[in-house]
Amino acid sequence: MDHEALLDEYTEKIEEELKTYLQKKVEEGRRYHPFIGEVYSDLEEFILRKGKRLASSSTLIIYEGYTGALDSKIMKVGVGIELYRHSILIHDDLVDRDDYRRGGKTFHNIFKKDRRYGDGIAIFTGNLLYALALESILNSGFGMQKLKRVVNLFARDYIAVNESQMLDLDFEYRSPDEEEWYIMASKRASSLFHATILSGAILGGAEGSDIKLLAEAAENIGYSFDIQDDIIGTFANEEQYGRPPGGDLVYWKKPLHMVYTMKLADESELKEIKEAIGNKENIENVREIIRRTGALEKAKEKSRIHAKRAIELISQTKLNRTTKEFFSSFITYVAESLDWYK
Amino acid sequence: MDHEALLDEYTEKIEEELKTYLQKKVEEGRRYHPFIGEVYSDLEEFILRKGKRLASSSTLIIYEGYTGALDSKIMKVGVGIELYRHSILIHDDLVDRDDYRRGGKTFHNIFKKDRRYGDGIAIFTGNLLYALALESILNSGFGMQKLKRVVNLFARDYIAVNESQMLDLDFEYRSPDEEEWYIMASKRASSLFHATILSGAILGGAEGSDIKLLAEAAENIGYSFDIQDDIIGTFANEEQYGRPPGGDLVYWKKPLHMVYTMKLADESELKEIKEAIGNKENIENVREIIRRTGALEKAKEKSRIHAKRAIELISQTKLNRTTKEFFSSFITYVAESLDWYK
Repeated sequence: MDHEALLDEYTEKIEEELKTYLQKKVEEGRRYHPFIGEVYSDLEEFILRKGKRLASSSTLIIYEGYTGALDSKIMKVGVGIELYRHSILIHDDLVDRDDYRRGGKTFHNIFKKDRRYGDGIAIFTGNLLYALALESILNSGFGMQKLKRVVNLFARDYIAVNESQMLDLDFEYRSPDEEEWYIMASKRASSLFHATILSGAILGGAEGSDIKLLAEAAENIGYSFDIQDDIIGTFANEEQYGRPPGGDLVYWKKPLHMVYTMKLADESELKEIKEAIGNKENIENVREIIRRTGALEKAKEKSRIHAKRAIELISQTKLNRTTKEFFSSFITYVAESLDWYK
Repeated sequence: MDHEALLDEYTEKIEEELKTYLQKKVEEGRRYHPFIGEVYSDLEEFILRKGKRLASSSTLIIYEGYTGALDSKIMKVGVGIELYRHSILIHDDLVDRDDYRRGGKTFHNIFKKDRRYGDGIAIFTGNLLYALALESILNSGFGMQKLKRVVNLFARDYIAVNESQMLDLDFEYRSPDEEEWYIMASKRASSLFHATILSGAILGGAEGSDIKLLAEAAENIGYSFDIQDDIIGTFANEEQYGRPPGGDLVYWKKPLHMVYTMKLADESELKEIKEAIGNKENIENVREIIRRTGALEKAKEKSRIHAKRAIELISQTKLNRTTKEFFSSFITYVAESLDWYK
């Protein structure tokens, strides 16, 4: 089964819904005030930038894996998931002071009169996007018992991702070990895939036993992709990454490959890494230390183990064959793509 | 009727609930990670700082005005409202770069390793507080139809307040007229009192005609208090205000009394005001211009008109006498207290 073709199909569907939704928001914003119209127009451009719609596609494919078909209700939830995801991204980009995302400016970077102005617009926009996401889910037309579970899920997972982001920020000032990294990541991993996969399952009418399997699968997908995403951030070239790599080195971030490096590197290597902080020029030296100590291979191996575990768990559910094969093919592809980054 | 005594009674009840709730959050946070426990502990101190609990008290008293009694369900909603309010305050303090609130540090100012760190913790904490508020409301035990309306209300009003805050920020770079100020304020006014009063009414089983009256009353209370709050910010002394006054002058903010001043002042006065921006030392000169042009009195008069209109609207509802008298007494008190600021 080719996951690419299916992912493209879902992406196209969700983008069509998103376009209609966002155009309406731009019009409503303009009627309120031209400046608010401008913000929604920038938001439309930001959200519709070319990219994988993996989060919302996951919800759709899980839902279809239980119900056998998509419908207009789940499409509204899919829109909500994309809004949710971008709400998180806007605030993350701001805190990381990243200037670019998916080939365009980050949201705080669009409004540049001064730092306070750009940050303020990005904070308020991220806030309202989360509320728009909830609104879209709450008014999707599903029954109230299911909706209550899904809104609770989106509240809990949003709390979890914000807690983990705080912890991740705090890690910049310390050296967490592997156990502590997993404590942080356990909440971050659950943020996106937990919310997207479980909302598809709950709304699709999955049994309790399947919800349990999928919750654990989502956590493993989260770990696997998280570890991989961080490796990409350090090891991809700009063309692969869509923005300059080495952002983690501007601050003293602690992705898993860096947690391992801190443990395995000798004193002179640690000194060299510390000196490279804040200076992307030295990224190749740091990469070399991460490779040499075996930290890169160790992190990759962890990512692969979680990917394998996720596939096993999904195979045990009552999802239909197409959905199982999609996840199996997609997760395998992501795990294998780790080989690109050396 | 003495609104003070009743407000104290409700404040005490809600603070008792809040304490229990926040202690549990601190414990849960500590179990996740010591740093997250620390954040929740600071949040507990921040939220429990001495202050009026006007927002949640409004919900309780409106609910009681329809049902005749409080119960454990509405207390959970009351907790949610306090969390909602503080979620908004944390982000506002950050954007305004205020250092103090209610006699203590603002949230971003508690975490001072550097600006990015403090801002990050405050952004993530504000985010999760909003989700905690929703969770508290959603699991209060009310029926699903009412809950759906209330969660929608909190989503819509959160969107509205974030839109108005953006516009207010944008006003710093322009000179809005009265009409434009009201466009901005129409969404900000609806933020807190709209959400608190209407949630009490919906959950208390108010009829559609009462909901309509209360929505308009809430908007008028919002305008009245908003205008007054801005006057306090410029004209109170530090003892009255709880932090140094004149914060609006650090940036080029446009509260209604300043909108009027910009229209009524002559060129040399405008020049004097512009020169005072960023320099709180010159606050008395600016105050004098706001007085001399008649802008202060004009803004006060607007606040009084909205207060009067709110009382009229509330008197037309089916709320019980105690609740009507509470709002009448309280709103009158606020309107009369405008005389303190000269």
